[in-house]
Amino acid sequence: MTGPRFTALAQSLPATVPFVGPEAQERAMGHAFRARIGANESVFGPSPKAIAAMAEAAPGAWMYGDPESFELKTALAAHHGVGFDNIVVGAGIDGLLGSLVRLIVGPGDAVVTSDGAYPTFNYHVTGYGGTLHKVPYRDDAEDPDALIEKAREVDAKLIYLANPDNPMGNWHGAERIQQTIEAVPEGAVLVLDEAYIDTAPGGTAPPLDPADPRVIRFRTFSKAYGLAGARVGYGIAAPDLIMAFNKVRNHFGMSRVSQAGALAALADQDYLRAVQAKVVAARDALAAIALKNGLRPLPSATNFVTIDCGADGVFARAVLKALVADGVFVRMPFVVPEDRCIRVSCGTEADLAVFAEALPRALNSAR
Amino acid sequence: MTGPRFTALAQSLPATVPFVGPEAQERAMGHAFRARIGANESVFGPSPKAIAAMAEAAPGAWMYGDPESFELKTALAAHHGVGFDNIVVGAGIDGLLGSLVRLIVGPGDAVVTSDGAYPTFNYHVTGYGGTLHKVPYRDDAEDPDALIEKAREVDAKLIYLANPDNPMGNWHGAERIQQTIEAVPEGAVLVLDEAYIDTAPGGTAPPLDPADPRVIRFRTFSKAYGLAGARVGYGIAAPDLIMAFNKVRNHFGMSRVSQAGALAALADQDYLRAVQAKVVAARDALAAIALKNGLRPLPSATNFVTIDCGADGVFARAVLKALVADGVFVRMPFVVPEDRCIRVSCGTEADLAVFAEALPRALNSAR
Repeated sequence: MTGPRFTALAQSLPATVPFVGPEAQERAMGHAFRARIGANESVFGPSPKAIAAMAEAAPGAWMYGDPESFELKTALAAHHGVGFDNIVVGAGIDGLLGSLVRLIVGPGDAVVTSDGAYPTFNYHVTGYGGTLHKVPYRDDAEDPDALIEKAREVDAKLIYLANPDNPMGNWHGAERIQQTIEAVPEGAVLVLDEAYIDTAPGGTAPPLDPADPRVIRFRTFSKAYGLAGARVGYGIAAPDLIMAFNKVRNHFGMSRVSQAGALAALADQDYLRAVQAKVVAARDALAAIALKNGLRPLPSATNFVTIDCGADGVFARAVLKALVADGVFVRMPFVVPEDRCIRVSCGTEADLAVFAEALPRALNSAR
Repeated sequence: MTGPRFTALAQSLPATVPFVGPEAQERAMGHAFRARIGANESVFGPSPKAIAAMAEAAPGAWMYGDPESFELKTALAAHHGVGFDNIVVGAGIDGLLGSLVRLIVGPGDAVVTSDGAYPTFNYHVTGYGGTLHKVPYRDDAEDPDALIEKAREVDAKLIYLANPDNPMGNWHGAERIQQTIEAVPEGAVLVLDEAYIDTAPGGTAPPLDPADPRVIRFRTFSKAYGLAGARVGYGIAAPDLIMAFNKVRNHFGMSRVSQAGALAALADQDYLRAVQAKVVAARDALAAIALKNGLRPLPSATNFVTIDCGADGVFARAVLKALVADGVFVRMPFVVPEDRCIRVSCGTEADLAVFAEALPRALNSAR
């Protein structure tokens, strides 16, 4: 009884999780977090209309969700002024990144990203046998020129760029991003992860060009729309690339309740604007807490603030550890020198009060 | 601007959908179905407690679902009397089949299934470059001996067997299935799809042996539990195989609302029993409608009844087409000689009345 014969690739992969969830940390600690401000979820919650739509959809959960996500894609196409055939809907950007990588990256294929950028993208690339080439951040930001240059050098099939960036929170303007799209080498596709675009200043996203084969833009309901747990993301790209997802995606993989929630959330742009205002206020409050503690908050176009703890990674990890032990769920960048920072998601006033109270203790404990 | 360079495998795949959803058919027809009894969804709906749990969870959809599905896996382990490390939860059996195939099947690897069995499994095998070897049904049933023999012959890495079977509805007893597990060749894994086990007679499933490396059993909340649109399935297998899913799965891919719904549904076994009784009654009613029209209903351990239309595939397809045009969503087997049948899911009394009224017309139109 030998059991499964895994592929050579599967055997080579570690059984690791890109992120440990806060629930697992709570179980390990034996108590709940007092503030859940570590995963860039939107503590302000989804639109009440989205909540109502989900509750209303729940009795109909006996039906599979429409595998074409027709209503949602129609609404998204209208919202963005692109065609229905420019949009693919999937189980969060994470799921869509997996499908994209699967379509394009085979063993040994070159992929370029920044060292310290989104680990789940790397997880997919490694998972399909691709070779990751990483360029460093420059001044705490992803470096589009270096990404393009590296892509040319290694003949990359995909180039990952998040704008605004996670985990650092900063952003490039539309013009810089458009120049980057123009500079994408032949045979490469720019994976432009715009998960945080809804909390960025106007003018951060270049106009959508639904015919451009050099870029796929990813958006999500997980951040500003407050529906991380619903698992609805989407990609916007030229029809040929969008069509290709049909070759590999889990057609009946969308939750019907989530489809209803996302549709209602998209329709409630007033609520989105109210959340955007709350995010701005919470960013300011987080920055003030950092400054009050002698730390430097980095500029942010996201729903989190990355805080420079003023020393090295060892110190920031100690601060993080003390915060977590004190019931404050936060995370931090993985890589030198960005790992001198901690990353704190926008919270409610209660969350921010917990953080304000816990941070001095954590800094003392780390010193 | 050449755009994406797809892998050779991706280029070789058709951009087809394993099943066209009823919503797409409705859009094409321009009107809604009068009876939605084609996808083996549970028209009886989920437990009211599951509905309440989902509605209650909706405001918390701003949080990612626990990537370990800890509570649900704990409850499932207790329910089945297996270990926590024997269970993997995923976005329906469809999603889990994709991960399983990805772990085990590479280009050219042999996989055995029955000709006419679940197309989504085939979609995954083809999608990862595997080679499908198909054995025919025997007397309208999957043929375990032929599957095992073929697996030996081609050195298969996976063997697919659904019990009860879809699309024919019949089943093998536990002893026969256990013998099949015992006969699995070295280096192969039996993919035992038990999606319909909750509507089968007691004694259809052999006891779970959580240490046996030769089989993975798949169960779902999509059928008797009435949560197809929630996308919650799970696999039960030896820990090594379960652990391997962590290498490739979309860790944060589970809807938090769906996790809550499934947990509540599992806890409400009284409701499940009530649904099981309704399924039995609906099967009997469907059989009676078939007989009244001079057709032969096949024995069923599922939430559908496959009806022999008494002629060939051309005739059955004409019957199906007439039913669909008349607003009755039903499906049928794909392959000769099973395609002489149509497959009708258990419906409410109203659904069954629509079917009873439409079937004679459809038969007349087909004749």
